[in-house]
Amino acid sequence: MEEFVKVAVDAMGGDNAPEEIVKGAVEAVKDCDKIKIILVGQEKVVKDTLSHYEYPADRISVVHAEEVITNDEAPVMAIRRKKESSIVVAMNLVKKGEADAFVSAGSTGAILVGGQLIVGRIRGIERPPLAPLIPTLSGVSLLIDCGANVDARSSHLVQFAKMGSVYMEHVMGVRNPRVAIVNIGAEEEKGNMLVKETYPLLKNCNEINFVGSIEARDIPYGKADVIVCEAFVGNVILKLYEGVGSAMMTKIKDGLMSTLRSKFGAVLIKPALKKTLKSFDASEYGGAPMLGLNGLVIKTHGSSKSIEVKNSIIQSVAFKEQQINEKIKNNVVNNE
Amino acid sequence: MEEFVKVAVDAMGGDNAPEEIVKGAVEAVKDCDKIKIILVGQEKVVKDTLSHYEYPADRISVVHAEEVITNDEAPVMAIRRKKESSIVVAMNLVKKGEADAFVSAGSTGAILVGGQLIVGRIRGIERPPLAPLIPTLSGVSLLIDCGANVDARSSHLVQFAKMGSVYMEHVMGVRNPRVAIVNIGAEEEKGNMLVKETYPLLKNCNEINFVGSIEARDIPYGKADVIVCEAFVGNVILKLYEGVGSAMMTKIKDGLMSTLRSKFGAVLIKPALKKTLKSFDASEYGGAPMLGLNGLVIKTHGSSKSIEVKNSIIQSVAFKEQQINEKIKNNVVNNE
Repeated sequence: MEEFVKVAVDAMGGDNAPEEIVKGAVEAVKDCDKIKIILVGQEKVVKDTLSHYEYPADRISVVHAEEVITNDEAPVMAIRRKKESSIVVAMNLVKKGEADAFVSAGSTGAILVGGQLIVGRIRGIERPPLAPLIPTLSGVSLLIDCGANVDARSSHLVQFAKMGSVYMEHVMGVRNPRVAIVNIGAEEEKGNMLVKETYPLLKNCNEINFVGSIEARDIPYGKADVIVCEAFVGNVILKLYEGVGSAMMTKIKDGLMSTLRSKFGAVLIKPALKKTLKSFDASEYGGAPMLGLNGLVIKTHGSSKSIEVKNSIIQSVAFKEQQINEKIKNNVVNNE
Repeated sequence: MEEFVKVAVDAMGGDNAPEEIVKGAVEAVKDCDKIKIILVGQEKVVKDTLSHYEYPADRISVVHAEEVITNDEAPVMAIRRKKESSIVVAMNLVKKGEADAFVSAGSTGAILVGGQLIVGRIRGIERPPLAPLIPTLSGVSLLIDCGANVDARSSHLVQFAKMGSVYMEHVMGVRNPRVAIVNIGAEEEKGNMLVKETYPLLKNCNEINFVGSIEARDIPYGKADVIVCEAFVGNVILKLYEGVGSAMMTKIKDGLMSTLRSKFGAVLIKPALKKTLKSFDASEYGGAPMLGLNGLVIKTHGSSKSIEVKNSIIQSVAFKEQQINEKIKNNVVNNE
């Protein structure tokens, strides 16, 4: 008998909760018959929303959680105090083994804290990174770490490189993924103290395909599959990616509306342009996994619509089937 | 009698030297009658190039420099050994007071090292930052520091904030410029150790208009005029700005060529799109000043054409007329 992948989903997290979250869950069970979903949140609200859909009733259940953690709350405090919140209740399901994975569009800070405090680190993993997939001209790259691990040490970065490599190879199907470290020049002697310390460690690491430094301008061109950096820099990269992209689109739209001639042109190019830009949109690729935990935690964008929620849920299947955590235990922890 | 602003220009630096550099110099003296230029480089080559143009002969002179520093050379070594290079010879002109400013499209590393070792820091300035102007939806912002000062301390960042503020106010004409520090969240308690240390210092700084943290996604929207960060992060921001922009353009062009309909549309929108994107192109705004030195050093992009060279040269006029270095001495150094 086939075993289901059980995913606890935070029905209350994100700008579009619970509607888009519930919708995404329904779409996920319809798209993939290996998934069972536990929607965690205020039972009445969630069940009301669910009642608008048809779905295989044995594959979506609801677990009540009275409280909601908002983005404004201090994460550590929120996780400690709000024991009845959807995030805490759902993470406890993962901890107890009642769910394989947890997906949330809620407070990033609370998810990162909860991941460490409730789900817990794999023994030997020093810090669990948050690793979003970012779009490039040639596909996607994993940006690791964008979490809350500021002021990281070189040993953390080495673990990030190995975990990222496992993820890209076995979840995303990239053979022998190229691992690079974010730097301000291509040469080995360049960089700040952390990069200079980490570079030789990565170079001597047999488990990964280390290709050296990557300058930020080369990231959108897909020159590496796993982009290693500490979380402050990763956060800047992720947010600037988003910011420059959306600012340019605003600028282009204004430009297209500036003359009568360009307005006509705009009508003609719209479908092609839309399709093009969709492929350069990070949200298409599901959520950001938090790696190195006793279970999978996936953070999806706060503004996620059902499609992103669905993609994030479906990511969990490959994660479980490919036994990513066993591979992390074997390749990352035991090899040190 | 009016005094000229004397600018030493590295005729040998950059991808398009000497042609575009010499052309830019000629355009600068024609555009602005307050400028005298000293082209520094291999005399025969420079004079040959100059002979293609008509210009007021008393306002462009040539100083011979036999050697050229390339981008591949280790900067410190190059500056120490190549005493007859265009960069070293030109910087010595600034040091001796024979030129007010130095403009180069050559090796960034060599320019940063030469700025410190040859031109020298203003007494009291701990580290001279490199501060490019980056385009935003509402104009330009100064990104300070993108130089070689990795692993900076909080006292450096405070000086960067003050110098950047002086520059934006008196060279770029921004009244009471908004100063922000790059961070991974808007709240005061967020950030890495450096940012947490620097934030309260900036908050208590009366000479600047500190508006708090800025997340990378808000930079392209022009939410601050002076963007303070240490050089590693600044470098990542600058290069990623460039990378995401050019990758998106590649993507959009491919998209426009994908269907017959969109090809027709592309012809119609081309002029409007071109104009729009020009305003989002960093090179339009001249070069990046290296602040806090006994003279002005401006680094222009390695791929600069004559227009950027000209703009960088003309920047020197406001810098001298507004007595930026006197203001830095008074507002930054003496106020500590």
